[in-house]
Amino acid sequence: MRLRNKPWAKPLIEENPDFVVTEPTKLKGKWHTRFQNNNPIFVEIGMGKGRFIVEMAKKNPEKNYIGLELQTVAVGIALKKQLEEKLPNLQLICANGSGLGEYFEKGEIAGIYLNFSDPWPKKRQTKRRLTYKTFLEQYKEVLDSNGHIEFKTDNQGLFEYSLVSMNNFGMKFDGVWLDLHSSPEAEDNVMTEYEEKFSKKGQPIFKLEAHF
Amino acid sequence: MRLRNKPWAKPLIEENPDFVVTEPTKLKGKWHTRFQNNNPIFVEIGMGKGRFIVEMAKKNPEKNYIGLELQTVAVGIALKKQLEEKLPNLQLICANGSGLGEYFEKGEIAGIYLNFSDPWPKKRQTKRRLTYKTFLEQYKEVLDSNGHIEFKTDNQGLFEYSLVSMNNFGMKFDGVWLDLHSSPEAEDNVMTEYEEKFSKKGQPIFKLEAHF
Ligand SMILES: C[S@@+](CC[C@H](N)C(=O)[O-])C[C@H]1O[C@@H](n2cnc3c(N)ncnc32)[C@H](O)[C@@H]1O
Ligand SMILES: C[S@@+](CC[C@H](N)C(=O)[O-])C[C@H]1O[C@@H](n2cnc3c(N)ncnc32)[C@H](O)[C@@H]1O
Repeated sequence: MRLRNKPWAKPLIEENPDFVVTEPTKLKGKWHTRFQNNNPIFVEIGMGKGRFIVEMAKKNPEKNYIGLELQTVAVGIALKKQLEEKLPNLQLICANGSGLGEYFEKGEIAGIYLNFSDPWPKKRQTKRRLTYKTFLEQYKEVLDSNGHIEFKTDNQGLFEYSLVSMNNFGMKFDGVWLDLHSSPEAEDNVMTEYEEKFSKKGQPIFKLEAHF
Repeated sequence: MRLRNKPWAKPLIEENPDFVVTEPTKLKGKWHTRFQNNNPIFVEIGMGKGRFIVEMAKKNPEKNYIGLELQTVAVGIALKKQLEEKLPNLQLICANGSGLGEYFEKGEIAGIYLNFSDPWPKKRQTKRRLTYKTFLEQYKEVLDSNGHIEFKTDNQGLFEYSLVSMNNFGMKFDGVWLDLHSSPEAEDNVMTEYEEKFSKKGQPIFKLEAHF
């Protein structure tokens, strides 16, 4: 997903350092202090426009949430949602997920969400997929011993790849859904922007829940 | 799948002890002698009417094949196909797959096929699924160190279950296909009776290839 530039995004982010972290390395090991509590912290990598992470934070005030996203414009759009809510348990990070191990201490995170990650379908792009082994290594590092990954996508190729990649890495599967919205778990499911778009087109939503 | 009784099936099987083994325990550790060569041996569990295993044996004369099936009538129908071909590299077994460890010596088998296995959808039927852990234990026992399992199904619930069950057992995935017939691998795919039926209805065919 490539968003058109929005000139207001960067200034808005700069005006709101309480909600958006642009230098997450400085908070490594200190995220609980930032949230001012010891509640578990959940991170979405590639949150896009932030609908999912904002709704999760609203729904679960006893948990902390961090939405991480590469694109300034997307972070700006997510920030607008947060400015309407001012949720104390939600922080946004504008940075690349590939640096995860530099942003979080070992075991600092209770769970990771990957929602509709870019599919990078070409073979030579494999290393960019958020379920490629170099990413999995970092997730393993920052997750606590009970930490889980929840991965949703509409993309068949990426899902097939991720099942193999996460299995080969030694991860244990908790559940697989090949049509999430027709399953009993649909009831508690919080939708993302992409999820709504693709499921409206009639495409099945795939989900994998797994731990290290 | 429950087949209507065919009175000719049992006598036909009895007349053809060279092609159908009814007491496989007696051949444990001796299957290579039975085939009169040292070619690798592949077993399909629940072959039904035998189209897949007959075609595989025809296509690959340098490999040995065994079609195992519980229902006498189905074995009879498969035997009719074999009597037309008289393939030296194909044997049929009329027995329950749950006894696999009694029919084969450790490492005697090079590969196992599970095609459109009965889904047993109810929770209390879990133990009957051919990808339940007690079955996986036996597959592990009889497979040689390079041995693979190839599992195909149209049944979403059984496929979701099997991905989790085989992963949790510690198996390594070689490949996952969520729509086999649209993939490049479709070209070499040998169809079963069920596969043709379900794919004609437009249902996607799922496949998992894995090893211990
Ligand atoms: C297809 S969008 C999905 C957005 C959102 N999760 C949803 O489901 O609606 C993927 C998002 O991931 C972001 N992204 C891709 N690679 C990333 C990375 N390495 N680090 C952070 N964000 C990334 C992209 O900028 C894009 O906004
Ligand atoms: C749904 S049919 C599929 C037949 C064939 N593989 C195909 O794809 O057309 C499943 C078959 O597995 C057989 N079966 C089920 N459980 C079995 C077991 N424990 N041992 C041997 N055969 C079994 C059934 O009798 C039935 O013929």
